[in-house]
Amino acid sequence: MIPNDTIIALATPSGAGAIAVIRISGSNAIALTDDYFKSVRGKKLINQKTHTIHLGHIIEDKRVMDEVLLSLFKGPHSYTGEDVVEISCHGSPYIQQQIIQLFLRNGCRMAEAGEFTLRAFLNGKMDLSQAEAVADLISSENEASHQIAMQQMRGGFSNEIKLLRDELLNFASLIELELDFAEEDVEFADRTKFKELLDRIEEVLKRLIDSFAVGNVIKNGIPVAIVGEPNVGKSTLLNALLNEEKAIVSDIAGTTRDAIEDEMTIGGIGFRFIDTAGIRETEDVVEGIGIRKTFEKISQAQVVLFLHSAEEFKNAEINLRSLQTEVGKIATKHPEKPLVILVNKIDILSHKEREALEQLLSNVEGTTFELISAKTKEGVDALKNHLLNFVNTGALRNNETIVTNTRHYDALLKALEEVRKVQFGMDDAIPGDLLAIDIRQALYHFGEITGEISSDDLLGNIFANFCIGK
Amino acid sequence: MIPNDTIIALATPSGAGAIAVIRISGSNAIALTDDYFKSVRGKKLINQKTHTIHLGHIIEDKRVMDEVLLSLFKGPHSYTGEDVVEISCHGSPYIQQQIIQLFLRNGCRMAEAGEFTLRAFLNGKMDLSQAEAVADLISSENEASHQIAMQQMRGGFSNEIKLLRDELLNFASLIELELDFAEEDVEFADRTKFKELLDRIEEVLKRLIDSFAVGNVIKNGIPVAIVGEPNVGKSTLLNALLNEEKAIVSDIAGTTRDAIEDEMTIGGIGFRFIDTAGIRETEDVVEGIGIRKTFEKISQAQVVLFLHSAEEFKNAEINLRSLQTEVGKIATKHPEKPLVILVNKIDILSHKEREALEQLLSNVEGTTFELISAKTKEGVDALKNHLLNFVNTGALRNNETIVTNTRHYDALLKALEEVRKVQFGMDDAIPGDLLAIDIRQALYHFGEITGEISSDDLLGNIFANFCIGK
Repeated sequence: MIPNDTIIALATPSGAGAIAVIRISGSNAIALTDDYFKSVRGKKLINQKTHTIHLGHIIEDKRVMDEVLLSLFKGPHSYTGEDVVEISCHGSPYIQQQIIQLFLRNGCRMAEAGEFTLRAFLNGKMDLSQAEAVADLISSENEASHQIAMQQMRGGFSNEIKLLRDELLNFASLIELELDFAEEDVEFADRTKFKELLDRIEEVLKRLIDSFAVGNVIKNGIPVAIVGEPNVGKSTLLNALLNEEKAIVSDIAGTTRDAIEDEMTIGGIGFRFIDTAGIRETEDVVEGIGIRKTFEKISQAQVVLFLHSAEEFKNAEINLRSLQTEVGKIATKHPEKPLVILVNKIDILSHKEREALEQLLSNVEGTTFELISAKTKEGVDALKNHLLNFVNTGALRNNETIVTNTRHYDALLKALEEVRKVQFGMDDAIPGDLLAIDIRQALYHFGEITGEISSDDLLGNIFANFCIGK
Repeated sequence: MIPNDTIIALATPSGAGAIAVIRISGSNAIALTDDYFKSVRGKKLINQKTHTIHLGHIIEDKRVMDEVLLSLFKGPHSYTGEDVVEISCHGSPYIQQQIIQLFLRNGCRMAEAGEFTLRAFLNGKMDLSQAEAVADLISSENEASHQIAMQQMRGGFSNEIKLLRDELLNFASLIELELDFAEEDVEFADRTKFKELLDRIEEVLKRLIDSFAVGNVIKNGIPVAIVGEPNVGKSTLLNALLNEEKAIVSDIAGTTRDAIEDEMTIGGIGFRFIDTAGIRETEDVVEGIGIRKTFEKISQAQVVLFLHSAEEFKNAEINLRSLQTEVGKIATKHPEKPLVILVNKIDILSHKEREALEQLLSNVEGTTFELISAKTKEGVDALKNHLLNFVNTGALRNNETIVTNTRHYDALLKALEEVRKVQFGMDDAIPGDLLAIDIRQALYHFGEITGEISSDDLLGNIFANFCIGK
């Protein structure tokens, strides 16, 4: 049953501002507001057109609470699909509370987190993945995550899923129809075409599932660990990347103990840089904890910046060999992680020394070095571009659908599993009734994404992550 | 000259919320918005009626920034009196910034603090004292200050001033007319009636000026200092009044060092309670600074709660005498401050001890004691009522005009001075031309309040205190 009691919440951020917006939705929203809103023109809201704005006062017992602008939306032409009234009042927290309390005393109920959007979903104004995109949109902090959420909210992802579902549903109906004529051994569903469809669905599912890795890091920011020996300039590099003095920098090896993290946007993509304690033998307990954390951070990172100091290369041969060993170690331990080898502090080199270093490094096979100076910022922009290349996948460039939601990812994995079962079943020529069951299962998981299949628990979980007022 | 370039600002509090409202005002507001807003119905805003709402997308170069609701107000039927567009977008700070930047790139200017309200004033939508009330309204935190601001915004104060000004202006004109006929020695202005008017004006001005003391404390909260010897339970009383654990409480005398302040609302009036360090001889430097602060706080307070412990009264006679001396000292030093003498910790007394104490205290002439237990909260509600009585003046009860604004207070004082000059002038029968000058001066100060007389500097000062977006 779709609830239609009247709910209220502050829709704008809390705190003081020029104005605040209070949203009321439900079957009684307009009549209730008419009891306490006196339009300056003396007209009742109930007689006004939808999508109109009215100046007036919120009045209780002759006491004027505020002069407000009232926006009227008549269902189904509203965000929730119900009658909706939005009160733009003066932005004092006191006034906001007074008005909300007035309506709570008189038949409104405080909206739960995401309840307005839940009602929009229940009233068919948007499907579940679109509703989820609303929350993503509100929390988006950079261009890439905003773009993905926007595309999902406008139905891009849902449409792709729905098309597949419809085609699959069509075949499922034909196969189930065959069951009704089981004794006659007819074949309504063209098995060759059905196999083609299954292959196509498998391909799309695989692409969507693969996009989750990209989608997830875009949503949460791509973690980049900065590691290296003590005093090679890791904190200076972090500050150079962030353009601010986030980490304390000193000449003393072991200055950084906590892993310092901060986010920044490069080319519309969010990166989370993690400065770590230098890896070395230490007797300082706090520093020791920091070093252990460094290893943790490497395993959490998507990209590792392995930082060295140009100073190390004074005794060139030896260090080069040990460097190769070290790089080899990390590469073996984390074969999937892009590793960027940086040589920092090149500002201390003379022109001749620098040429010699470049010559030397170009001879190392299988490893590319980037020369930078975190201090003078030489090479820092090149490094940023390098990072951007790791994530500028074709999908992001071509505006393809990217999955960012763990729930969708799970449903897609399950759907793929069921589709494969159907494929195996076809190969083994299993009976039509068993085939139908597997197809139904795949359809079920598709439906979970768009909300055609949903449970109260599921809805509760999804909308609990919303902010109040949406 | 009234500026009409197009300005933009976020009108809702900053931060993430369900929705945010961006306000655009100026001669170009609608045409500019039409360039980047695509209504789902495909209609241009310029052809739409005022006070209507439109669903659509903010689009730049085919990139959809957000799905928004757009409220259209055509001048003069808007807050500023100009064309105004309000964009309700999704409440992500990223989206807010993207939309504002889009308009800044294309001909809008960032609004200065209070600039929307300044334009409303310049376009005659409200007078200056009403505009100032908007800022007060937004910052109001309790019923009393909200009520005063609301009344002022609706023109209560302005009307009173305007009526007096009009009557005075009328007489001024008549007296100036007499000057034109100076040789004929006529008297157009009835001197008796004029004296009556001046007396009436003087009375109103005096009442308004007197109300400032009340208005000011209502606006800022009434400061109440809690003072007393160490360990009589001052911090416990603060916590009991605030209903929370604000101050650290211990049995150790001298626990409180900083003066701890917090606000609470009693019966719609804001109170600022100030817990102070106990007054005693100490060698602890930090505590010593705290005690010095206590004396400062007493002088800042409107009401002083002088706290004692029932324990002190075990050796009754002696303490009673020293108590009277102490009370006398404070009363002499701060004769204007209401002093409430409290005896705390009555929960530790037996029934018999309590009766004895009550008997004892009732014999002290000229001083009333209140018995309380901050621990069990006995007597705390009675104390709150006691405090409320200090401010529940007739003015507040009868909804009379209360002045809260220092600028208005200054102008009223100056107007009163000029009115008195006119009165003296009348008594001394000074020539009409000199009289006319003094009347003009009084009129000038009246006009300062409502903004009929204003300078750019004055306006700059007033609106600089507003928040951006209002």
